[in-house]
Amino acid sequence: MKLVLAEPRLLKESVGIISELVNEVTFKLDKDKIEITAMDPANVAMVMFKMLSSAFVEYDIKGAQDLSVNLDNLNQVLKRAKPSDTIILETVDNKLKITLKGERTSTFSLSLIDVEESEQKIPDLKFDVKVEMPSVVLSDAVDDMEIVSESVALIAESNKITVQSEGRFNAAKVEVPATEGIIIKMKDSRVLSKYSIEYLKKIVKGSKIAETVDLNFGREYPLRADYKIMDRLMLSFILAPRVDND
Amino acid sequence: MKLVLAEPRLLKESVGIISELVNEVTFKLDKDKIEITAMDPANVAMVMFKMLSSAFVEYDIKGAQDLSVNLDNLNQVLKRAKPSDTIILETVDNKLKITLKGERTSTFSLSLIDVEESEQKIPDLKFDVKVEMPSVVLSDAVDDMEIVSESVALIAESNKITVQSEGRFNAAKVEVPATEGIIIKMKDSRVLSKYSIEYLKKIVKGSKIAETVDLNFGREYPLRADYKIMDRLMLSFILAPRVDND
Amino acid sequence: MKLVLAEPRLLKESVGIISELVNEVTFKLDKDKIEITAMDPANVAMVMFKMLSSAFVEYDIKGAQDLSVNLDNLNQVLKRAKPSDTIILETVDNKLKITLKGERTSTFSLSLIDVEESEQKIPDLKFDVKVEMPSVVLSDAVDDMEIVSESVALIAESNKITVQSEGRFNAAKVEVPATEGIIIKMKDSRVLSKYSIEYLKKIVKGSKIAETVDLNFGREYPLRADYKIMDRLMLSFILAPRVDND
Repeated sequence: MKLVLAEPRLLKESVGIISELVNEVTFKLDKDKIEITAMDPANVAMVMFKMLSSAFVEYDIKGAQDLSVNLDNLNQVLKRAKPSDTIILETVDNKLKITLKGERTSTFSLSLIDVEESEQKIPDLKFDVKVEMPSVVLSDAVDDMEIVSESVALIAESNKITVQSEGRFNAAKVEVPATEGIIIKMKDSRVLSKYSIEYLKKIVKGSKIAETVDLNFGREYPLRADYKIMDRLMLSFILAPRVDND
Repeated sequence: MKLVLAEPRLLKESVGIISELVNEVTFKLDKDKIEITAMDPANVAMVMFKMLSSAFVEYDIKGAQDLSVNLDNLNQVLKRAKPSDTIILETVDNKLKITLKGERTSTFSLSLIDVEESEQKIPDLKFDVKVEMPSVVLSDAVDDMEIVSESVALIAESNKITVQSEGRFNAAKVEVPATEGIIIKMKDSRVLSKYSIEYLKKIVKGSKIAETVDLNFGREYPLRADYKIMDRLMLSFILAPRVDND
Repeated sequence: MKLVLAEPRLLKESVGIISELVNEVTFKLDKDKIEITAMDPANVAMVMFKMLSSAFVEYDIKGAQDLSVNLDNLNQVLKRAKPSDTIILETVDNKLKITLKGERTSTFSLSLIDVEESEQKIPDLKFDVKVEMPSVVLSDAVDDMEIVSESVALIAESNKITVQSEGRFNAAKVEVPATEGIIIKMKDSRVLSKYSIEYLKKIVKGSKIAETVDLNFGREYPLRADYKIMDRLMLSFILAPRVDND
């Protein structure tokens, strides 16, 4: 197989974000796309990554193929790519060969690893709320919660989204009104669900990939966040709710 | 009470500097100003902060009031303010409510705390020397002392200020002649006093607030450093001298 | 003796680089140059530094003289120099006096130390290969090896230089063809030698000093790297080869 990418940024950023959640992953390659579906070791978050063949300058894959790699190593290699470099991915002798081609040509080869994983199934979820908003508004809001640093509640109402966190001593709240660029679709009048701030902070880094995020969630129900670039890439997360006993 | 600040920078920088010296403080509010007078836990430095009502866009305080807060928490909140944000401070239900209003609106609420403190009296000091100088000249000079990193001597003479430090092996000295922008007022011909470099380094960060610093000190006597912005703000420190036994 | 340097950058960068390899050094001064020849504590790398009298604005040295100093301390002092400062070096009372003169004048004095060292002889080496290349191409290539992070092989062939590293799981390789700006002189068809990446990474920082590096090496033989600025300065390293037992 041989994949050529003219712009390293998207793959580089995606791998950086995913590597904060999972360490060993399997890329599934077929003639249309490369794909990761992985669960974090604590079973709290699932990450789904898809890069379409149209994102590549050259895309040559014969039949379906699985490539399991250590994501930290891949991340280290991609970090060496300069913005103007071309990235070439190939498999040679049971290794993943990565070539960064620019002023100089650097070649890296990473051992393919065995990942014992039960096939990850993306759960079939039915959400109460669908929100579309600028991705940086969400990441700023989640970062605001850090002063409280416990679970974070997402609250959807027909005219606004609220991100809030309440600790024993301190509290933080960001209200995002449904104005230009923010679309809220829901049947109920108010839906609240809580999530781990630690995971949310990793997920909202998707704002480096796409300008818009699609959020789906429900009452004490998983959250799904999708970062998409049309015809090229999707980075999605499913995060389990945090159910407080208070 | 309700206070509205159009420019977050001054409050943000001041709280950042003060929080390196003290952790729990009491803001004293009256109809003219908000004010902190606090002693560091080691009883070596006192910090005095005053922000005048004229620094605020809206200033509505009914009668004198004390607000004690954890300064680290307040610092964390203010760090989230963007340069163009408006800051609103209110008391609601025994909490300090802080609103950062910009492209988004973030609201934080911090528990008011009980601070058992004997009323801090600002000591009545009579100084031998009064110096006015660019605040960055002082902070550069103190930073130069770090290579020796023991006590620092301030020496005033009629025509120059000297900052110097002598260790067993190394020594450092900065001489600032009394030229343009530097005014030295003193009766004696030479006044020397030593202070802790660790504290001095925190104090000279006042250069982020004001372009000029007023220094007052005496022989083996406390140092007072004042950073002022006319009609708006004053950040002052009193630092105990370090008396060497050599 | 009195030395005056109008541009602090070269001395500052050189001392910073050397101080990562050795801590206590002896500057040998004579009427033409100041010079360091030092071995790192592990006896793996030798560093040679030479600054010619023509690099100084004022150069006044009476007879040969040795000055031994703690390089960390000297580094700390030079770091305080601003780009527009003039640096004055003098010996006063068995101390090295360093004056940084700019908007303010800072004076530092460092104890001269006793260094018990057998005179360092620069070994007389005969190399199989001589390469001249842009210094940043070499430092980028060495930094690329970090993902493997074991010994690094330098391979010279008549038409290219290869930098490569192979670990148990991963490998990295950079090929630099002998095109514009890269000159390779050798008799054999292929010369390979391995070196410690840890040391190489410190050595290639010479790219901050000079745009070109001269590399000399041989089969399982030391590497010599020279960074030169005509008529002013030379920073050179000799690095022992790493002989693997595999």
